[in-house]
Amino acid sequence: MDARGSRPGGRSARVREAVLGAALALLDEGRTQLSLPEIAERAAVAPSSLYRRWGTWENLISEALLEQSQATVPVPDTGTVRGDLIAFAESLARFLATPRGAGLLRAVSTGERSEAFRAAQDRFWDERFALGRVMVERGIDRGELDPQTDPRLLLEMVVAPLHLRQLLLGDDPTLKIAEQVDLLLTGSRRHS
Amino acid sequence: MDARGSRPGGRSARVREAVLGAALALLDEGRTQLSLPEIAERAAVAPSSLYRRWGTWENLISEALLEQSQATVPVPDTGTVRGDLIAFAESLARFLATPRGAGLLRAVSTGERSEAFRAAQDRFWDERFALGRVMVERGIDRGELDPQTDPRLLLEMVVAPLHLRQLLLGDDPTLKIAEQVDLLLTGSRRHS
Repeated sequence: MDARGSRPGGRSARVREAVLGAALALLDEGRTQLSLPEIAERAAVAPSSLYRRWGTWENLISEALLEQSQATVPVPDTGTVRGDLIAFAESLARFLATPRGAGLLRAVSTGERSEAFRAAQDRFWDERFALGRVMVERGIDRGELDPQTDPRLLLEMVVAPLHLRQLLLGDDPTLKIAEQVDLLLTGSRRHS
Repeated sequence: MDARGSRPGGRSARVREAVLGAALALLDEGRTQLSLPEIAERAAVAPSSLYRRWGTWENLISEALLEQSQATVPVPDTGTVRGDLIAFAESLARFLATPRGAGLLRAVSTGERSEAFRAAQDRFWDERFALGRVMVERGIDRGELDPQTDPRLLLEMVVAPLHLRQLLLGDDPTLKIAEQVDLLLTGSRRHS
């Protein structure tokens, strides 16, 4: 009896890893429209198992990007909200500046806006912002932030300039991060 | 003698308008890679005059987008920096939410990153930020803003979330604009 056969979780985890890796590799190559059969072929897995598990290629890509994001852009816990937001933005900016990060960003920007795409897009961002909001909540709990702070809005404003610089401005997203976080914490009004 | 022939500026202005309009129309159709001959054909103008005047299609598109931006997203003068930034962001968000704005944004995001593309991209954004900085400078002059405020950084943070929502989040860029400007002006630190 094959030892691996007695651990279906182990085999299932390996298949999942192969499939998500194949999907990311296709995105790395600049592809923006994929299909479950071609991802299955790249991963050397039966297409039926992809249909059963993910349903659409958009769901699969969303899961692959989430896993990738959590590995490369973890939510830090430095002890201050300023430290957390700077560390978070720095790891995100470094990822966006890599060929894989830049390529994924362009692929996601050009994806066809189907219902399945929008559903996967919503799931991806909702989950990312749900993970990140703990940084804001800890800042409120420590008395650093106004209790009325909108966690999602603050996080959007931390990540938005990095995406703008990489995707549209052609500037280095890793610059000016501390200045940007300080602007969001302190504001630009004159204090006299 | 043709009356128009005696006003070369008038004819030149009409040719320019036809050419820039043709370039925008091609972008509207979802095209991301253009050439001067096909823009010339669409505009019914000799290609040689396009080469002489613009040199590359990227220069031409940059000029077309600048003109489009100045018409649809003017720099307001409401009397307060808060009013100016909100009005500016609202007109930009409304434009980005139109089919033309959304299409242009996607076209620019996917353009091939040639030297000519980067040069035209830099020129476009430098000119846009140069026009917008007067809002920040008036705010400093009126004593509303900290004199150390970095105009480009503040403007980037006003426009970045609108682009993020339209291009990546799939959210309505016209929402939350006042909250976003207030966050940049007042900050999120607890005031006690």
